[in-house]
Amino acid sequence: MHDRIERVDVIVASPGRNFVTLKITTADGIVGLGDATVNGRELAVASYLRDHVAPLLVGRDPGRIEDTWQELYRGVYWRRGPITMACIGAVDMALWDVLGKRTGRPVYELLGGRVRDRVDVYRHCFGWELPQLLESCDREIAQGVRFVRVQSSVPGLDKVYGISKDPNYEPAQRGALPDQETWDSAAYVHHLPGVVEAVREHVGWGIGLLHDSHHRLTPTEAGQLGHALEPYGLYWLEDVTPAEDQDALRVVREHTRVPLAIGEVFNTVWDCQKLIEDRLIDYVRCAIVHAGGISHVRKIYALGELHGVKGAPHGPSDVSPIALAASIHLATATYNFGLQEYMGYPDIVHEAFPHAWSYADGALQPGEEPGLGVAIDEQLLSRPEFEYSTAYLPVARRLDGTVQDW
Amino acid sequence: MHDRIERVDVIVASPGRNFVTLKITTADGIVGLGDATVNGRELAVASYLRDHVAPLLVGRDPGRIEDTWQELYRGVYWRRGPITMACIGAVDMALWDVLGKRTGRPVYELLGGRVRDRVDVYRHCFGWELPQLLESCDREIAQGVRFVRVQSSVPGLDKVYGISKDPNYEPAQRGALPDQETWDSAAYVHHLPGVVEAVREHVGWGIGLLHDSHHRLTPTEAGQLGHALEPYGLYWLEDVTPAEDQDALRVVREHTRVPLAIGEVFNTVWDCQKLIEDRLIDYVRCAIVHAGGISHVRKIYALGELHGVKGAPHGPSDVSPIALAASIHLATATYNFGLQEYMGYPDIVHEAFPHAWSYADGALQPGEEPGLGVAIDEQLLSRPEFEYSTAYLPVARRLDGTVQDW
Amino acid sequence: MHDRIERVDVIVASPGRNFVTLKITTADGIVGLGDATVNGRELAVASYLRDHVAPLLVGRDPGRIEDTWQELYRGVYWRRGPITMACIGAVDMALWDVLGKRTGRPVYELLGGRVRDRVDVYRHCFGWELPQLLESCDREIAQGVRFVRVQSSVPGLDKVYGISKDPNYEPAQRGALPDQETWDSAAYVHHLPGVVEAVREHVGWGIGLLHDSHHRLTPTEAGQLGHALEPYGLYWLEDVTPAEDQDALRVVREHTRVPLAIGEVFNTVWDCQKLIEDRLIDYVRCAIVHAGGISHVRKIYALGELHGVKGAPHGPSDVSPIALAASIHLATATYNFGLQEYMGYPDIVHEAFPHAWSYADGALQPGEEPGLGVAIDEQLLSRPEFEYSTAYLPVARRLDGTVQDW
Amino acid sequence: MHDRIERVDVIVASPGRNFVTLKITTADGIVGLGDATVNGRELAVASYLRDHVAPLLVGRDPGRIEDTWQELYRGVYWRRGPITMACIGAVDMALWDVLGKRTGRPVYELLGGRVRDRVDVYRHCFGWELPQLLESCDREIAQGVRFVRVQSSVPGLDKVYGISKDPNYEPAQRGALPDQETWDSAAYVHHLPGVVEAVREHVGWGIGLLHDSHHRLTPTEAGQLGHALEPYGLYWLEDVTPAEDQDALRVVREHTRVPLAIGEVFNTVWDCQKLIEDRLIDYVRCAIVHAGGISHVRKIYALGELHGVKGAPHGPSDVSPIALAASIHLATATYNFGLQEYMGYPDIVHEAFPHAWSYADGALQPGEEPGLGVAIDEQLLSRPEFEYSTAYLPVARRLDGTVQDW
Repeated sequence: MHDRIERVDVIVASPGRNFVTLKITTADGIVGLGDATVNGRELAVASYLRDHVAPLLVGRDPGRIEDTWQELYRGVYWRRGPITMACIGAVDMALWDVLGKRTGRPVYELLGGRVRDRVDVYRHCFGWELPQLLESCDREIAQGVRFVRVQSSVPGLDKVYGISKDPNYEPAQRGALPDQETWDSAAYVHHLPGVVEAVREHVGWGIGLLHDSHHRLTPTEAGQLGHALEPYGLYWLEDVTPAEDQDALRVVREHTRVPLAIGEVFNTVWDCQKLIEDRLIDYVRCAIVHAGGISHVRKIYALGELHGVKGAPHGPSDVSPIALAASIHLATATYNFGLQEYMGYPDIVHEAFPHAWSYADGALQPGEEPGLGVAIDEQLLSRPEFEYSTAYLPVARRLDGTVQDW
Repeated sequence: MHDRIERVDVIVASPGRNFVTLKITTADGIVGLGDATVNGRELAVASYLRDHVAPLLVGRDPGRIEDTWQELYRGVYWRRGPITMACIGAVDMALWDVLGKRTGRPVYELLGGRVRDRVDVYRHCFGWELPQLLESCDREIAQGVRFVRVQSSVPGLDKVYGISKDPNYEPAQRGALPDQETWDSAAYVHHLPGVVEAVREHVGWGIGLLHDSHHRLTPTEAGQLGHALEPYGLYWLEDVTPAEDQDALRVVREHTRVPLAIGEVFNTVWDCQKLIEDRLIDYVRCAIVHAGGISHVRKIYALGELHGVKGAPHGPSDVSPIALAASIHLATATYNFGLQEYMGYPDIVHEAFPHAWSYADGALQPGEEPGLGVAIDEQLLSRPEFEYSTAYLPVARRLDGTVQDW
Repeated sequence: MHDRIERVDVIVASPGRNFVTLKITTADGIVGLGDATVNGRELAVASYLRDHVAPLLVGRDPGRIEDTWQELYRGVYWRRGPITMACIGAVDMALWDVLGKRTGRPVYELLGGRVRDRVDVYRHCFGWELPQLLESCDREIAQGVRFVRVQSSVPGLDKVYGISKDPNYEPAQRGALPDQETWDSAAYVHHLPGVVEAVREHVGWGIGLLHDSHHRLTPTEAGQLGHALEPYGLYWLEDVTPAEDQDALRVVREHTRVPLAIGEVFNTVWDCQKLIEDRLIDYVRCAIVHAGGISHVRKIYALGELHGVKGAPHGPSDVSPIALAASIHLATATYNFGLQEYMGYPDIVHEAFPHAWSYADGALQPGEEPGLGVAIDEQLLSRPEFEYSTAYLPVARRLDGTVQDW
Repeated sequence: MHDRIERVDVIVASPGRNFVTLKITTADGIVGLGDATVNGRELAVASYLRDHVAPLLVGRDPGRIEDTWQELYRGVYWRRGPITMACIGAVDMALWDVLGKRTGRPVYELLGGRVRDRVDVYRHCFGWELPQLLESCDREIAQGVRFVRVQSSVPGLDKVYGISKDPNYEPAQRGALPDQETWDSAAYVHHLPGVVEAVREHVGWGIGLLHDSHHRLTPTEAGQLGHALEPYGLYWLEDVTPAEDQDALRVVREHTRVPLAIGEVFNTVWDCQKLIEDRLIDYVRCAIVHAGGISHVRKIYALGELHGVKGAPHGPSDVSPIALAASIHLATATYNFGLQEYMGYPDIVHEAFPHAWSYADGALQPGEEPGLGVAIDEQLLSRPEFEYSTAYLPVARRLDGTVQDW
């Protein structure tokens, strides 16, 4: 006899940063957790799950993971996009969690078993001035990290996304309107190669250097930047152009040999099919949560394996420890996995989401607990100080006042 | 000195069917309305608008329509998909409504002015048995309608989406789980041509016949069906395959000369760029509301004009009279417009949304009132009987029990 | 009840340079102005408008902007080309001007509203010798200009188009046959990179440098030149090859990462569809007047937005202050706008065409007057000294005496 | 020593239909004639020639035909389009005429000499009802004609372009606004195959049947029509879709094996390069006058020879006997020539333009006089009754009131 989903709860809380957590409880008392956080649009996701998805789940067999995915995707008529796919992703994660717990196995074992010893991560290193950036790299490397993403200020700009004098910088601002930034691609493209050159000189050739352009360049600028960075052996250049425009990467690809990564904003395979099939990128960066969960991202990875593209998921602090767990489990069992972004969490997040996965020496381990191995401390999160409040990512504008693409 | 947005309200009400309405009030007292209804996911949209978008709008210049679009699309980072784009669509409509009222002109005049005398519509005709279908056609044609969409039952199936013995059939069921239907493509492909042949014989050659396959076929089945229907001069064959898979239509196109329409589920130009640029379809069916509003759909139409593809928007009763108004205004001013789907509304909807647009003789007229020319009777809609309750479209499964795509 | 076009006048006058102005007067007394100047072919345009288009306009509703465009384009049978499209462009501009005045709003508000704070321009800097070129740059930069087009002499050539010892250089010569120049691509390709290097060193990296090759190179030469210029961070390289040959740019693109601009001679989207859709350029330079007016160029920009191509219109003194106004209004409301060429006018032109747009600090502003905000002083222009007389652009020949392409 | 162009005259006259004739007189007293007629835009062409081109011609060596072409095309900066290219075409024709007279040879001998015995023509056959159409065919066939273009009325339409109850039907209306017609593609596509079937049955299989769709169909409709006509062995199906959209023909080509002809509106090889290189058509129909004269059309034919496309020029009464002569001479010397359209002229035109070419037995002969062998009776044409007056082609609108493409 099969189990049935008995309860579906949606927990919205903000231990420093807003998270939306889906909690599925079965008739047998198994609890499955899924992360549905869409940074800056959390309540819409919560409503989608609570008001529209939950009634469809109650009574279903939690073991029908793929069938549930198909019905939520195909049955709703309106499909794709971050809200829809994050909700499906949360359900999918939670059902895999349930299956792991029912079988007493960590999820990665159900996905094919361990294929790698460690899930390498890259860490965020930044500095307004070069010395701080180098220090930031030194700190990570000293702890065994082998891959660092280096970001720097841009001459003439007051604020730059992802860079701060505060090393605990958190870009999403709670309880306020979006921060306004200015952007100047020409200054950036001219400045960055010197920075990367200096970092390479400082850290030597044993460290993987990454850089993120936050979708702010034209394909031609991206080609120029990539070309200029080639001498410094970049591990990847990320998010050079607005990602919905897959053809843009073709122009970039023709003009530089630098490895290309993109895809934090992808929600389905349709968003990156051309990129993968035409081999326009080297790494696809979609997060498990935003791209429909383990079941769908696994298919994206399968397509990537066929075309020489590796998975390298988004993983800043807007991905909760639950989604990160899903990401680690999938990485552990996926042959063509590359790197996991890992920004880490403040202590309170670790406390709120006790987890079996662990981080050490620049790598993540899924742990051996059944399911995804993450719990949620609902009592802790119910404290008033962790109540949700609206937070926005900053908005950048160019020197002529037009909105800058992310 | 410019006006400022002072208030943003979101009205969720259900005069027979659920609608989400965005109401923007400016400091000068101008009210702009936008429809944000996403059938079956209404509260998620309402939350997206109320919790995340409204704070960004208050204080903005309502005349900066394009800039607001760009900021809501690019500034949020997470983009595309039905929820996000319907919200942007609602804001866009409401701002065009404000501009029309500020200038004292109907919106179509601001979009380039009248380019056609009438916006031809197609009507839904259906019958479980052929006689009822023919009667249904006769009824419409008697009222001056020149284009009818004919749908029929399928031998061996108990229920078929869009067909009912009840002529006032409404597919979205309030306050219940989705209806479960069964689907059999083989029976359908075999049965339909005879039905269309009979209708053509009955109505003669002066009437445009359309048919909707609800995304249920494989490309090969679709090619077979299109080929079989060619002798009956179909005006279009709609939604033959799942629409996110643009390449599927290439196979269909190679196998039939029947005109193809698709796109109710499209939310941005990225969802149909290949379809349009490679001329895989004849009509693009995205609704103004679901595809980012007037500003974005106008760009899709411009792309279509270059490639011989006409606009022919979705327009059943899940598109409120406000979005329908936007659709009519844009159609009135767009050269490469084809047909508007018009299912009509129960009286209570006309009452709840008093409108300047009108329907007669198989065509819609935008009316000459400033803006979109639609109001909302909030007092009426606040009656308890019109309170929102969850409604779902039916879910179909194939004979082997797998979920059937829409 | 709608307004009607009552009078159509064509004013040809030469306040230093020949201009053709279309003046539409409606029954309500609203006057709309359009620029139809085609440098060197002015009277043919005037005849086209006066003899063939004016009779079609009288009696029409001036609000039917798109319909009028479609009828003038499609109804005439013979389409495309500079004369036809400049005439349609003039009518289109004039009708938008009328709509702005009727609604009391500046045209940019009717096009979607302000999307940028300022319309950045680039200015012409040139010098026969390097010191004069550097001075010319200094002069512009001192006034806040951030983008300069640098042109220089070529060793061995006596005259070079666009370069003169006279800083008030005007290339079109009144009342004479075309000036004869000589051209030597090899000398030019060899010489230019050193010039640009010197300018970059002189002005530093905060200034955008542009260069115009006047369609004089083969694709291979263009690839070489672009490659040689890459170290100096050119903002764009313009008009490298004859523009009707869209495929030529593909070869150039494959050989250089320098941003490419082209399109002053384009008259419709058909002239640049491949360039845009295949991403062979970064900036499309068609002028509002020569490419069918606001209504058509807006569609070209929409296509460009989808493919990462920005608008950057032609704007020397053969574009009258009316067409420049149209260009500024459209730029103000267009997201994917790049730069406006602005050569400025002698005082008498400002006097003859009093305008609301303004230039300061390297940027243009549309002004807030209704419509395009430009008037024409017909009395002033009727003075004998401003009478039209034929003027020609120079003609260049190569060293072997063959005609050199522009 | 070379001859010099001494005088350039432009003669505008209307012997039943408006013609623009260019007359070049050399210092040696040789007169060359060129046709520059652009139906409905005649005075703009006349101005272009008289005001802008004539000053450039006086003093030139008339023997530099290719150089003059290149300078008028490349030197003017603004290029392409019907007005520009018809003017260049007229100059080119006139210079070939001069060369023929100087050498004492008919032009075809200077183009490579006779390659065919006769230039086959097709004739216009039409009838509002089928019997009249069949009679019209019989009349032509009785005179030895082997190729007829059959056009018929369309059920439900009052007027149809090219069809009249008057067998001397002339579509361009003098001294009036354009005639307004209505168009209904669906009725036409449904009706025509039966008509063609009846004609084929009547005339038997020895006669080539052609049909012209006047650019009024979508690619899908065109594919359907072509497919439906396949059983009746059409010689060609002409102008199915708007011709500036070259890719549209690709869709048509995929859906029907009927031979395709297009190109009356083409002005340069750039307008049809893709059509020819991708073999999307079988016949290219550009007129010598509208596509830049003998020198340029010869190059288009050369491209066609390479790709299996034949020349088959436009030749109704808006092409004067001069341009027709040029067409015949080029056809006589061109290997890959197909058919010449020949509508004939009223007697007064033959009188006004006495010509060496002749028509008999369904074919044209160039005659053996030096040059093009056409004169102009300026005295006759100076009679008041032949004065120019504006004439327009009709404008068609669809049932919904939108402008119908030609």
